[in-house]
Amino acid sequence: MTAPTVTSVRITPVAVQDPPLLNSIGVHQPYALRAIIEVGTDAGLVGLSETYGDDTTLHRLGQVVPSLAGLSIMDTNGLAARVATALGDLPPDTPTILAGPASAAKAVAPVLSAFEVALLDLQGKATGLRVCDLLGGAVRDAVPYSGYLFYRWAQHPADPGYPPDDWGAALDPAGIVAQARRLVDRYGFGSLKLKGGVFPPEEEIAAIRALREAFPQHPLRLDPNANWSVPTSMRVADALRDDLEYLEDPTDGIPGMSDVAIATSLPLATNMCVTSFPELPEAIERNAVQVVLADHHFWGGLRASQRLAGVCQTFGLGLSMHSNSHLGISLAAMTHLAAATPNLSYACDTHTPWQREDLIEPGVLSIRDGVLPVPDGPGLGVRLDREAMDRLHQQYLRCGIRNRDDVAAMRVAVPDWTGKTPRW
Amino acid sequence: MTAPTVTSVRITPVAVQDPPLLNSIGVHQPYALRAIIEVGTDAGLVGLSETYGDDTTLHRLGQVVPSLAGLSIMDTNGLAARVATALGDLPPDTPTILAGPASAAKAVAPVLSAFEVALLDLQGKATGLRVCDLLGGAVRDAVPYSGYLFYRWAQHPADPGYPPDDWGAALDPAGIVAQARRLVDRYGFGSLKLKGGVFPPEEEIAAIRALREAFPQHPLRLDPNANWSVPTSMRVADALRDDLEYLEDPTDGIPGMSDVAIATSLPLATNMCVTSFPELPEAIERNAVQVVLADHHFWGGLRASQRLAGVCQTFGLGLSMHSNSHLGISLAAMTHLAAATPNLSYACDTHTPWQREDLIEPGVLSIRDGVLPVPDGPGLGVRLDREAMDRLHQQYLRCGIRNRDDVAAMRVAVPDWTGKTPRW
Repeated sequence: MTAPTVTSVRITPVAVQDPPLLNSIGVHQPYALRAIIEVGTDAGLVGLSETYGDDTTLHRLGQVVPSLAGLSIMDTNGLAARVATALGDLPPDTPTILAGPASAAKAVAPVLSAFEVALLDLQGKATGLRVCDLLGGAVRDAVPYSGYLFYRWAQHPADPGYPPDDWGAALDPAGIVAQARRLVDRYGFGSLKLKGGVFPPEEEIAAIRALREAFPQHPLRLDPNANWSVPTSMRVADALRDDLEYLEDPTDGIPGMSDVAIATSLPLATNMCVTSFPELPEAIERNAVQVVLADHHFWGGLRASQRLAGVCQTFGLGLSMHSNSHLGISLAAMTHLAAATPNLSYACDTHTPWQREDLIEPGVLSIRDGVLPVPDGPGLGVRLDREAMDRLHQQYLRCGIRNRDDVAAMRVAVPDWTGKTPRW
Repeated sequence: MTAPTVTSVRITPVAVQDPPLLNSIGVHQPYALRAIIEVGTDAGLVGLSETYGDDTTLHRLGQVVPSLAGLSIMDTNGLAARVATALGDLPPDTPTILAGPASAAKAVAPVLSAFEVALLDLQGKATGLRVCDLLGGAVRDAVPYSGYLFYRWAQHPADPGYPPDDWGAALDPAGIVAQARRLVDRYGFGSLKLKGGVFPPEEEIAAIRALREAFPQHPLRLDPNANWSVPTSMRVADALRDDLEYLEDPTDGIPGMSDVAIATSLPLATNMCVTSFPELPEAIERNAVQVVLADHHFWGGLRASQRLAGVCQTFGLGLSMHSNSHLGISLAAMTHLAAATPNLSYACDTHTPWQREDLIEPGVLSIRDGVLPVPDGPGLGVRLDREAMDRLHQQYLRCGIRNRDDVAAMRVAVPDWTGKTPRW
């Protein structure tokens, strides 16, 4: 074939109902924002992708769009060059939605990723192949995901109009175990992750111990999102040293993580102190983390995530996968990537159970027995439900939320809330 | 499409006339050995590849062949698994043709690479795309190669029946400059590399200075193949600090290279102390090399070479490309890889000017103005000249050479030659 070339790019912001999930800096807003990317070609094919839907991301995506006309769907190197040119010389302190110090690389990579996934979807559609085939072939037919546990309220405090889900509150060990039970019963998750950093460490230690007792065979993870000091991190790591498969981002920054790592036998994982390639060398030199969480949205795409996997393999680091609130297009992309990554050594995170709305045609992505079978393809193997997308776009227009701000959402309930970390 | 699957694998050893090129351990034998791989599919397509033709490589390729039936041409991950299974648990001291300490990884990677390139050629043929398109798109339409200078004799000493070429001897600075002049006139090379480690360092310093004077604008490289001690390396590096773009493998091993690196401002390059992924961490930690020479034949294939490129980019290492004696199939693969590798920061090595025989249909690969335009494809873009291959296979059967042994070849002229390094 002659590779199709890009003739149109459409970006649609959407808002998705999101439950009041608690974390270190506050609480999820009533709506999570996503952007849906549709890349059209001269062959009549359309490639799909999904990324963050905040104003900054939307602005940067829009900056790139005019430069994509005529790009071959095979030319991801050319895409990277066009994205870099379109975004121009970003100052090193360019704000991004990624954790850790700001950098131009962190501003560029998510934008590149958003379009790269759409090109890979197109490559699959043009050849009849699955994205995982394009990425080197599936080493697993189904991808294990872990059950993502959250402390949460039953309802968003200042939004009585927001329809509550039927999960109710989970604010103590018994509530977390009940939530885990329901997730495991429904999806068969074989491992569990608790989003921590919400309550004093002793309460979260108690929650992990309750999970350990209720699910003696399940690997467990705890992620306080850097809400602990180094000494607190050391104390919790010691208390839970026999109970976790890894401890994720107990404290902030490479130096602090490195201090904690020396003091514990627990592997430390991160999606905060290492979220870009330039941060890897120092983290590796200081042995600050033993597991890196890939996330194609911020590492620069599916191929870039494979590059990260290569670095992890070369340096003996474990590899897991991070998730923000997302919809089915991203879930498909995550699944194809995970299927084609031999050294992905842990079950992936996903927020899927917490989303009750989606915009892909249903029935394709379904977690059973803790795994998600790789979609058949071609490409990502998912199709837009345009009516659903229009509804979620209308919801975006109505909801008024334009940036993620879990601190502000918490302030509705706790007026003097600062969201400042570390709290303990 | 449904991806074609493998139905046949044919491996043909060939021997190619090779001039008496001198190096640190001896002299090239009158024939260089290569193996040609043809992978057939149920779609009637045949993928090509080329690798080493020594007995050990042929044996290992043969061990893998029975396990390849039914493999999807997209499934390079599956290929890696099948190769690993077929070769079994290799002991860590498994001999390989790569420099440095033996390892199982070094035994597996070349075998994997041989088949991976054929699969990528097939992927291109099945889709109508060039290999460089499959690798992410060409960032350059033509790949710069450097002129590879060798000290050499006019004729193989003990083989009067071997037809001499018309290059004559090059055994001193004037001879090297004359050789360079002819290479630059014919191919337009924009940079030059001298294979050193042949004569006492002062003579090679003089040769580089003569080249610098004759070609004031050409970047120059010197590669003594670890034939120098650390102090000698430091002395030469100091003498040539303003004349070289990099100094390649002055001394043996990561510790020695690291000592030299501290003492010089010259970038040190290697295709000897780092030839496999497990060797990268120590080399990076000790800052032993500043440039790594990729070679898809021994790094595990084209995708694995991209993984190496990712590690180099992440850690701020330069990337160049190594060459052994090779034919057109490998030259095409090298060119597609180089075209699709953004951070390949130097012109590639090639032995092409020294080979007067080939087995691909002529006219496709032609170096002009120092660059080789990327072949059009599909796949690698080269086709077997079956008559030429048969002739080179007959030559293999006749020549009696079954393993590369430059020491033995030298011993014909210098009976007490040991090939022991470092000599100076």
